[in-house]
Amino acid sequence: MTTTTTNLATKQPKTVVLAKHSGFCYGVKMAVDKAFELADSNKETVYVLGELIHNPQVVEKLKDKNVKTVQSIDEVPAGATCLIRTHGVGPEYQVIAKERDITVEDATCPDVRRVQERAMQLADEGYVVVLVGKEDHPEIKGIRSHTLHRADVTVLVVNSPEELDTAFEGISKNKIGVVTQTTQKEDNFFNIVAKLATMAKELKVFNTICPATFKRQYAAEDLAKEVEMVVVIGGKNSSNTTHLAEVSRQQGTEAVHIETVAELKDHPMLEKYTKIGVTAGASTPDWLVEDVLLYLNNYHLQ
Amino acid sequence: MTTTTTNLATKQPKTVVLAKHSGFCYGVKMAVDKAFELADSNKETVYVLGELIHNPQVVEKLKDKNVKTVQSIDEVPAGATCLIRTHGVGPEYQVIAKERDITVEDATCPDVRRVQERAMQLADEGYVVVLVGKEDHPEIKGIRSHTLHRADVTVLVVNSPEELDTAFEGISKNKIGVVTQTTQKEDNFFNIVAKLATMAKELKVFNTICPATFKRQYAAEDLAKEVEMVVVIGGKNSSNTTHLAEVSRQQGTEAVHIETVAELKDHPMLEKYTKIGVTAGASTPDWLVEDVLLYLNNYHLQ
Repeated sequence: MTTTTTNLATKQPKTVVLAKHSGFCYGVKMAVDKAFELADSNKETVYVLGELIHNPQVVEKLKDKNVKTVQSIDEVPAGATCLIRTHGVGPEYQVIAKERDITVEDATCPDVRRVQERAMQLADEGYVVVLVGKEDHPEIKGIRSHTLHRADVTVLVVNSPEELDTAFEGISKNKIGVVTQTTQKEDNFFNIVAKLATMAKELKVFNTICPATFKRQYAAEDLAKEVEMVVVIGGKNSSNTTHLAEVSRQQGTEAVHIETVAELKDHPMLEKYTKIGVTAGASTPDWLVEDVLLYLNNYHLQ
Repeated sequence: MTTTTTNLATKQPKTVVLAKHSGFCYGVKMAVDKAFELADSNKETVYVLGELIHNPQVVEKLKDKNVKTVQSIDEVPAGATCLIRTHGVGPEYQVIAKERDITVEDATCPDVRRVQERAMQLADEGYVVVLVGKEDHPEIKGIRSHTLHRADVTVLVVNSPEELDTAFEGISKNKIGVVTQTTQKEDNFFNIVAKLATMAKELKVFNTICPATFKRQYAAEDLAKEVEMVVVIGGKNSSNTTHLAEVSRQQGTEAVHIETVAELKDHPMLEKYTKIGVTAGASTPDWLVEDVLLYLNNYHLQ
């Protein structure tokens, strides 16, 4: 028997489902609002230490408004205004800013601020402090700097249970304290804590994953169960967005991680599936999500 | 082909391996020494609140020396001497003893005393206190009584991860503190902590399994890997002895839990295996172990 395939099929309409929780969290929203507000009220350039949020499209818009991303406070001119982004920075920046008469506008997310405080508390209580997260992530860098307020503290950054096999070489396991990057994937955090429980004599753990992050992860899990394919919108450099794609794939559902609708246009996977889920990271603005929804809802007309 | 089996085989000699760590721990040894010492120096009956240790043979020997086991302090006559066993008791007993002029001799194991203190500390620090162990075990009862020194504390006794599914109904999971019965099986404790990590906002854990317990468990594991069958000696009512048999079976090795050599004589399993491991619980005196070793080493001569 021979099967003949033709390429003349018309585009099928899509059923589009938006995740129950997705997009901007309150910390990111506050920071973005503050940046635009500062940009509107300042004639001078407003400086941001590192990209305000992990979303290139928003950063680009701010650039048009004379909000400049710099990588070091040394690049901020004396007397200028400098915005601290949601991820926070170490306390040393306040000192440098004061010395150079820089006006600091702090948009550190309150949830991140709490992690910094918890980590400092653990250090004060004599724990070896384990920060669960990525060593080079700005949030972890800031938390680490805060924790080093004591000269006698040991701080370890760990991002997987396997790293614990060697992380404690030469370091006491009597008192281990743990906090986590607010955007950590829950199961990874739990696996690390479970392994630490088998190592420590005394273990103190603050689950500092932020509510927005775990709500979004659970919603992505539910979404992935309901649809045939998930579109995850957000910066390729965003931890929490990347995790949403991982969570979807763990459910056995295909996931495409895009930054803008342009990457979705004529995507071969769209031909395969009819029921499409959409979610977005904490640093993804609504208008990027709306672009995608518009495209998918009108897919069969294009 | 036909195989003929005869019943005329002579008994094969056994290779007997004693676990690297087994038998009396220092807490039990101190308590038993103290009991015999008190018995020798007192003309009057010495009372023990509950069986001194979970070993019927030792308890029987003490009975012959006029050391009497009672179930309640009400059974101790005013002015008499009362020995507190290794498992400890609640602080209310000191009050009652004082009222009735009872001389208290405290043989609470120092490791158990530490668990009581840790549990009280967790209560003072505002944690819901989870005691990992058996609700009706005297050690847990004593720890629980100590923890209730505060009127505002919530204490939960949990013995398996499954029990956590319902244990926290109506109870806050914001701050959970954990200690464990000193003779807890390590993997059970770790599994419970791992599950609590997924539930708590803040988790503080003291791994209070005593060194003697986990050394004995690891040694039983090693032993089970080396031999064909393990003989576990100790009270049938002893938690830590029962765990040693479980640890051996988890290695896929058959284990027989006996109290005295009498139960081993002509045991059908001994005909099946040549390489036999021997271990004993923390409350098993040397002479019971020696009886077993003697029997097994001379098995082929009997």
